[in-house]
Formats: sequence, structure tokens, C-alpha cells
Amino acid sequence: MPDHMTDFSRLCIHTNTTKPWTLEQAIEGYGRAGVPGITVWRQHIEPYGAKEAARMLKASGLKVVSLCRGGFFVATGAVDREKARTDNRRVIDEAAEIGAPVVVLVCGASPDVDLPMARQQILDGIHAVEPHAKAAGVKLAIEPLHPMYADTRSAINTLEQANNLVTTLDSPWVGVCVDVYHCWWDPFLRAEIQRAGKSIFAFHVCDWRVPTRDLLNDRGMMGEGCVNIREIRGWVEMVGFRGMIEVEIFSDQYWQWEQDRLVERIKRAWLAEV
Amino acid sequence: MPDHMTDFSRLCIHTNTTKPWTLEQAIEGYGRAGVPGITVWRQHIEPYGAKEAARMLKASGLKVVSLCRGGFFVATGAVDREKARTDNRRVIDEAAEIGAPVVVLVCGASPDVDLPMARQQILDGIHAVEPHAKAAGVKLAIEPLHPMYADTRSAINTLEQANNLVTTLDSPWVGVCVDVYHCWWDPFLRAEIQRAGKSIFAFHVCDWRVPTRDLLNDRGMMGEGCVNIREIRGWVEMVGFRGMIEVEIFSDQYWQWEQDRLVERIKRAWLAEV
Repeated sequence: MPDHMTDFSRLCIHTNTTKPWTLEQAIEGYGRAGVPGITVWRQHIEPYGAKEAARMLKASGLKVVSLCRGGFFVATGAVDREKARTDNRRVIDEAAEIGAPVVVLVCGASPDVDLPMARQQILDGIHAVEPHAKAAGVKLAIEPLHPMYADTRSAINTLEQANNLVTTLDSPWVGVCVDVYHCWWDPFLRAEIQRAGKSIFAFHVCDWRVPTRDLLNDRGMMGEGCVNIREIRGWVEMVGFRGMIEVEIFSDQYWQWEQDRLVERIKRAWLAEV
Repeated sequence: MPDHMTDFSRLCIHTNTTKPWTLEQAIEGYGRAGVPGITVWRQHIEPYGAKEAARMLKASGLKVVSLCRGGFFVATGAVDREKARTDNRRVIDEAAEIGAPVVVLVCGASPDVDLPMARQQILDGIHAVEPHAKAAGVKLAIEPLHPMYADTRSAINTLEQANNLVTTLDSPWVGVCVDVYHCWWDPFLRAEIQRAGKSIFAFHVCDWRVPTRDLLNDRGMMGEGCVNIREIRGWVEMVGFRGMIEVEIFSDQYWQWEQDRLVERIKRAWLAEV
């Protein structure tokens, strides 16, 4: 088990964690709180455009850790699948523009596409956009999503599946994102983290509330649930991960808070629980 | 893919599917509808006692398929773990009394016990009660639960884990229960069903609603969601499963219906979707 964090040098917050804030407010708020890292969600870029967002981020001095999110490669029709690829190339361009070294991929799923077919479409989709990522110098991080999202969000539900994709695609531009919320239950998590090794491009934390009241927007603050966050951090660090650690909490509860207070709450949990 | 069902000879309903009914009402209701199989939940036995419930079930001519449920072997203290074992022996006795050949095990989990420890306690617990099951002539079916229940209900979340337990325990009295709701998302489901083979003691069906509005009580009627039910039935039958197929739907929505109407709705879905 690694030591507790003693400073905030590796702390990154997702703009969707402080969803009520605009990008401008998030940049100011994280700056006020001494949070050095930011992962930007596309809807927070949209009102400004990538160019202006890039200028704001550069001026802020914040480190841009990732852009969320690409993916959603699964669709019944070829036209929609091609649209998804086009959109992913755009996300990659936006990442390059704002200086995000990584795009996180939520791979996609549809109740109208069976899972083996969905997984094939995901493989094909990432393969199709990988050259664009390579050309742009942007990495793609496949994020396995909790199995409760296998109906509409991702047919990639374990780190083993994500690692299999990485092995198959065999590109230094394709790796994985480990999110404790999605993976904590997995009996093979530690083994698959070891297998992922240097291809761990991102590490997300929050907690699993007991009970969880909503499938989507009831993630817990670190320490509030049952996830062995610090132990899992130890596992990713054991294989060499030294990047920023990203706090990604979707929570109807915390979105109702005054967001400066939420950021302070995150900082306390960071020191005590991450 | 197997053919559609053309009759109700393999249809079994869980008393918890028609939760508003007492055991007496369920027996009458299933009888009226020509449903030949019943899986009994303990809370439906309790008001009568096992002996009286056994008499009622025998008189009804219904086939008792399983008793739900034993398990919950995980606890921080040894006294509580011993209590759980004692309780499981009682469940086994009840199953023998009512003529249920199988007890379904929801293995247990606790936010206060880490998952590797919980899994060890589960293994130890089943090992401790297996001689009692053998002596009573009652089989134990380990039911892997969906990963969203890993916090408080079961640390066994994939069929692979359940199969590993079966292999370790190496008893003809210990097998698995495959429930499509818990397992449909699993990329290794087909392979693990093949591995389970003759140790598949029970097969449960319902559907995964899109969207799912509640983590516990929003299961769908067969055909209402995205689960490939008939295909999975084909997989379990390919390895020799010929038993009753159990309809287990926890649904606040359907529990509000007039329950005779629900049973008729199940029969329609049975012919069209199972």
C-alpha cells in the first residue's frame, strides 16, 4: 500500500466533476484551490470552441491531462459508424489543440447490436482512427466501463477486454484508462493492471457508494464508499504509472453544492483516501 | 439458437416474481395458469413454516424447483460467519422438507470486508455446509451476481469465479446457477457455461431494461430489454441442461400489477422470447 498523498502535485479534476461550472469558472476555481491538473469534457469546450479554450487553458498554467471523451463506435448502420469515426478524429484534433496528450474512449454499446458484434465494431473503429491519433500525437485510452453500462455505453467492461484490444491493435498510441469505479469489483484487476503495464495512460478515482441510488450520477467522494482506492493506486504505480490522478465524480448530490466547497472537499479526500 | 418454446412444461416462476402473493395465492395462481414449476423464496414459507408449506406444495402438484436463498457467508466477525453457516444448514433442511432439490446461494459481500477476504469466507462457508447438503440430498447452486452487487450482496460476480469455486470444492453437491440478468454482459459467458457443463443446477431468466431505473427492482420482462435470452438458453442446453427454466423478475412495476395478469404476461413472453 503506498503512502498517503502529502501534497496536491498529482491532483487533477474533471470538468464534469464540477459540472455546474463553465470552463472559465473551472479554470479559475481549480486555480484558486491550487489544483494543478484539469481533464476537460467536450461540453465544457463547446461554448468557446477549441481554439479559445486552448488559449484559456494555456494562460491558466493548468496541466491539461485528458480530453473526455471519444468512442461510441457502435451503431447498427455503417453510416452512423462512419460518423462516429469522423467525430473521433475531431475529438483527437481538439485534444491536440488544447494540449491534452490523451483522449479517453468510452467505446460504445447499443441494445440493438449484440455484444460480440459491438466489440468487433469497437476494434474496427479504434483501428480506423489510430493513424489520426498517431499523426496528431494524441494517445487513445480505452476505458472499460462497469458492466451495468453494457447496454448503451460500452461493450468493453473489464480491463482484460481493454488489454486484449491493446494487444490486438499493437500501437504505442493505444492504451487503457483504469477507473476504480468501473473496475474495483473485478477479481482479476490486479493481474490485468500488471499486464497493462506502461499502457496505462490514465487513472481515475472516486468511490462506490453503499447503497448506490442511481446507476449514473451517484458516484461517491473518495472514502465515502467501499473501493480500495489507495491499494489500486499502489498497483498502477507498481507498474510505473506516475501521472496525474483524475477525480471524476458524477453526482447529482455534489453538483448541488457550491462548487468551491466541493473542490475543497475533494482536496481533503485526496489527502486522506487516495 | 434453439427453437421457441411451444408449451409451458419447463416454465417455473419464483414466488418473489409475484411477491404480493402469499405462498397459498402463488400456488393457486400458478395452478390456475397451468404453470408447472415453482421456486420458493423463504419469506413466502415463513408465515406457514416449512412443514405446512411442504404439505401445501405437495398437495398442489407443482414441481418445486429451488429454494431461494442461502449464502451471505461474509461478515467481519467469526460469530456472524458461524451464524450464517447455521442459517444455511437450516435453509438446506427447509429445502429437503419442501422437496426442493436445490438451494440457490447468494454468496454475500460486505463493504467492511475486502473482496479477496470475502471470497475466502465464501469458499470456507460453502465448504463448511456442504456435508450437511450432501446428507440432506440437497444441491447448492452458486449464483454469480452482477458486479453492481459486489458491495453488499455477492463477491462472486462472474460465472468464471463460480466455476472456480465449484472446481475447488469438488463436490457433486456444489454447482452453479446461471441467471441471464447477472451474466449477460460477460464476454466469457459462453465459454464458462461450457466449462460449467453438468454443474449447471439452475437457469434464471428475465431481461435488462434500457434504461434500468433502479439497481435492484427494475428487472425487465423477457423481451423487454437487451439480453439474448434464447441464445443463452441454447448455450446451457448445449451442455445438457434440461431442467425447468425459472422466471425471476424483481420489479416494482410488475409488483403493482394484478398478479394473475402478470403470470399471463410471463406466459406470453415465455413463448415469444425464451
